Amino acid sequence: MPPAFKAICLIGKYKSPDIAEPLLHLAQFLRGRGVRVVVDSITAAHVGHNDIEVLPLDEAGRIADLAIVIGGDGTMLNIARTLVPYEVPLVGVNQGRLGFLTDISVDTMFDTIGAVLEGSFVVEERMLLASEVWRDGQLIFDVKAFNDCSVAKGAEGGLIELEVRIDGQFVYMLRADGLIVSTPTGSTAYALSAGGPILHPSLSAFAVVPVCPHTLSNRPIAIGSDSVVEILMHRCADARVHYDSHSHCKLAARDRIVVRRYPKTIRLLHPVGHNYYHMLREKLHWSEAL
Amino acid sequence: MPPAFKAICLIGKYKSPDIAEPLLHLAQFLRGRGVRVVVDSITAAHVGHNDIEVLPLDEAGRIADLAIVIGGDGTMLNIARTLVPYEVPLVGVNQGRLGFLTDISVDTMFDTIGAVLEGSFVVEERMLLASEVWRDGQLIFDVKAFNDCSVAKGAEGGLIELEVRIDGQFVYMLRADGLIVSTPTGSTAYALSAGGPILHPSLSAFAVVPVCPHTLSNRPIAIGSDSVVEILMHRCADARVHYDSHSHCKLAARDRIVVRRYPKTIRLLHPVGHNYYHMLREKLHWSEAL
Amino acid sequence: MPPAFKAICLIGKYKSPDIAEPLLHLAQFLRGRGVRVVVDSITAAHVGHNDIEVLPLDEAGRIADLAIVIGGDGTMLNIARTLVPYEVPLVGVNQGRLGFLTDISVDTMFDTIGAVLEGSFVVEERMLLASEVWRDGQLIFDVKAFNDCSVAKGAEGGLIELEVRIDGQFVYMLRADGLIVSTPTGSTAYALSAGGPILHPSLSAFAVVPVCPHTLSNRPIAIGSDSVVEILMHRCADARVHYDSHSHCKLAARDRIVVRRYPKTIRLLHPVGHNYYHMLREKLHWSEAL
Amino acid sequence: MPPAFKAICLIGKYKSPDIAEPLLHLAQFLRGRGVRVVVDSITAAHVGHNDIEVLPLDEAGRIADLAIVIGGDGTMLNIARTLVPYEVPLVGVNQGRLGFLTDISVDTMFDTIGAVLEGSFVVEERMLLASEVWRDGQLIFDVKAFNDCSVAKGAEGGLIELEVRIDGQFVYMLRADGLIVSTPTGSTAYALSAGGPILHPSLSAFAVVPVCPHTLSNRPIAIGSDSVVEILMHRCADARVHYDSHSHCKLAARDRIVVRRYPKTIRLLHPVGHNYYHMLREKLHWSEAL
Repeated sequence: MPPAFKAICLIGKYKSPDIAEPLLHLAQFLRGRGVRVVVDSITAAHVGHNDIEVLPLDEAGRIADLAIVIGGDGTMLNIARTLVPYEVPLVGVNQGRLGFLTDISVDTMFDTIGAVLEGSFVVEERMLLASEVWRDGQLIFDVKAFNDCSVAKGAEGGLIELEVRIDGQFVYMLRADGLIVSTPTGSTAYALSAGGPILHPSLSAFAVVPVCPHTLSNRPIAIGSDSVVEILMHRCADARVHYDSHSHCKLAARDRIVVRRYPKTIRLLHPVGHNYYHMLREKLHWSEAL
Repeated sequence: MPPAFKAICLIGKYKSPDIAEPLLHLAQFLRGRGVRVVVDSITAAHVGHNDIEVLPLDEAGRIADLAIVIGGDGTMLNIARTLVPYEVPLVGVNQGRLGFLTDISVDTMFDTIGAVLEGSFVVEERMLLASEVWRDGQLIFDVKAFNDCSVAKGAEGGLIELEVRIDGQFVYMLRADGLIVSTPTGSTAYALSAGGPILHPSLSAFAVVPVCPHTLSNRPIAIGSDSVVEILMHRCADARVHYDSHSHCKLAARDRIVVRRYPKTIRLLHPVGHNYYHMLREKLHWSEAL
Repeated sequence: MPPAFKAICLIGKYKSPDIAEPLLHLAQFLRGRGVRVVVDSITAAHVGHNDIEVLPLDEAGRIADLAIVIGGDGTMLNIARTLVPYEVPLVGVNQGRLGFLTDISVDTMFDTIGAVLEGSFVVEERMLLASEVWRDGQLIFDVKAFNDCSVAKGAEGGLIELEVRIDGQFVYMLRADGLIVSTPTGSTAYALSAGGPILHPSLSAFAVVPVCPHTLSNRPIAIGSDSVVEILMHRCADARVHYDSHSHCKLAARDRIVVRRYPKTIRLLHPVGHNYYHMLREKLHWSEAL
Repeated sequence: MPPAFKAICLIGKYKSPDIAEPLLHLAQFLRGRGVRVVVDSITAAHVGHNDIEVLPLDEAGRIADLAIVIGGDGTMLNIARTLVPYEVPLVGVNQGRLGFLTDISVDTMFDTIGAVLEGSFVVEERMLLASEVWRDGQLIFDVKAFNDCSVAKGAEGGLIELEVRIDGQFVYMLRADGLIVSTPTGSTAYALSAGGPILHPSLSAFAVVPVCPHTLSNRPIAIGSDSVVEILMHRCADARVHYDSHSHCKLAARDRIVVRRYPKTIRLLHPVGHNYYHMLREKLHWSEAL
């Protein structure tokens, strides 16, 4: 017997009025099937007046059995970070070119989501990172990340120097543009541009990827996701920590950034027939044929 | 209570008469502690006449509680492939520069191995690959590998074209010099030269690493070690399969190479204080200090 | 006043009967303009009986003012190596997807080649390599290359070790899969797959590119085209020298391979509007737009 | 007959009191040989009271036949940018580990510089870059660079998007962390960390090197030094232009950065026996022996 999705939360891309129409159609479609539909308050503000129930996103996460995100991979990253504590599965609908996380086209969403409601889907668990910044023994910042946590040189272009420890063991001193700790999800994003490996989503691993290291033999390392990565800033000019490519925290020398696995996972629901390698081929222009 | 190593097999680097002296000293040392010492018959032939019990390597593997290899990483690779079915733990002693797998110096081996006998050691499990070559529905070759299984173009330099499937799913068509499937152990060997990631030995993963791919966006992928990799040869001139850098099998078009995890693991015993990252720094000349 | 192309040699892709039709049409077109048309004898054998003058390729090169090659980049490489001593300019016509060297489509060739006859074209000079293999003081092999000269490990997969000298100065000892010396023309071929830089065709430079070097800090070097590269084989198992990806010569330890610029250049005639960067974008799938 | 170095300018590393002693010894040594010695005013302020003639750096450059820099490669970069208009040759003396540009040890400088005075040296010409930033048709910034000119994302981590044109031809649209235009001198600095090729100093070429490009097939290109590179900012958050790793100019969308060869070159005087490849091996830890 399929799971019953009694309450579904709809979330649209931030400040994108053009998702109003598909979102409202989807709401109608879902209510026609007896589902309670809620929209988060930020989306509601863009979608305009209507009779759908509106809740703050975290409350919506608490009551929903499923969240459907209409937008791109960036929207999915943001929503996943917020909703991961509530363990609500996510479905991603894309208006344009399909993304790694948003693999349902708005054009076929009634069929695909109809099938999901009837229990036809593939579940995929994706891990997130929990990261903390410590200064002088005080926690000054903590945040979740779905793709990656990175330290990067700032605008002044000054050298950054940092020390990497994994599970308490010294790994190396690094002079570089930066350092990325990436989940499998993030391994096809920024870390890939920096020369990191693709980590299959089923792998319980992080990639630790130096960005433009001065020492040419510094190479990406994949480690188990139960490992704890510590980054100690030795020299950091105006370096910053970034999470999922957003800057959050300016660093000072002797700051300590701790990155570990977040205890809960995101469940992505994919259409039946979902194929990770197919997506890689599409997105990276790999050869179908010779 | 420490494990009792009642019977220990000593194995020396192939055709290396200079291991005779440390090996015989070690035999004496072990017998002084009441251990039954055996030497495999190939080593015995190089060590010269003596009163140590000699057995074929596989029989020695069957009766020994521990095997001590005196040689370099290459010797360890060979011995590990032969002994893995017998589940006998391995210790590696190196006469020269320490290796990834042979991390005990011959100069300090009495202390270190003495400590091992008393139960002071760190156990590390390392996976191997089992690989098969199929032609026209017939298994024509099967072999184990500790580092890697690779397909490579032959001496003629002709183009090779192959198709990669993982867990039955099509991944890509590849024109390249070759393709490497590497264990974590092999990830610091050939695969690293080809741009592959370092996989921490605790990671249950393989790296699939294209060698000089024509499609520049083809990048290394790390996959779970329960995955099965299939390589289908489309065009192969005089391509070959290599296991741990030894050539074993010339390929023909339509050959299918299957690579999966070998069901048993090798247990390496390291001295207490063993540190994988320390070894990486040493071998790859990473910075200790800024 | 445009140059007068009084005698034009037509050359077709080897063993490709489908070039017969466009080639014969082109011959007719050229003769309609008063040009003497010759076909090289190998092409003639595939094109079938006709009334076109047939000459061996080198004789055709001697008398022709222009050579038109119908085929792909591989055909152009072969023909350029043969014709470079005769300083006859080349035009490349492609039946399929345009290549780096064959940038005129068979579909539009009457217009484009008509324009060339009237003096509308862009001339580009491309350098070639001259390479020699010396053994025990004897020259055992010498050859020209348009793309690259490379040393590569053989089918056995055994380690190759070689010493690189440039202009008599020791550069490094290399353990690797191989080493490539590439012209700008070859810099978008094999050398690019091995991580080499793209060298603009106007640059008088070679790229020296290690293939999968053991020493991770070994990086490609671009040197002036008046430099002489020497490769001394220290250990070579069944290594070979390849020229433009064809194997020509099996190497032995102590062999010395000398690579320098060939004294003459190939002149490629491109249609007006020819744009090197446009071709790079097309072939490497670079972004036109964001 | 050797050139007569009648007036020599001594320049010390900025804010480094420990260069005072070798600098004053060197001044004494040179005056003992009848040379007029001047010190630039900034160095003079750190060296302390003494009887050496003091001039502003550019005036010193105008009257000197030779400038001797005591410091590291960073100091040489700064001094070279200032002195290049005056065409005064440079010698680099290093107190610590020798650099690419400062290849005379302070320990042996009397011998080496004595030999230089007598005409024993090797001259090497090195090119610099001249770069301009244009906004709304106005030149808002112009600067010289010895290593490189780069555009880089700023502290916010926001995406930068830019368009590259070379000699007026569109090359690509780039989404990346940045883009580097490097001289041969700079090709062993930042550009190398970003995957760029090493350009031999005798090569009249620049390397155009993308930093962490989203399009994985974007590769470094080496172009002739008579080419003009234009970078048009499409989206730049808080991106900046950096010259020799110093930030100088915050960019805005539609800014145009123009990079070309500076019309004059720097002449470096090296000790006889100077060997570029030797320095590469030392600095990059390449193998001397197998």
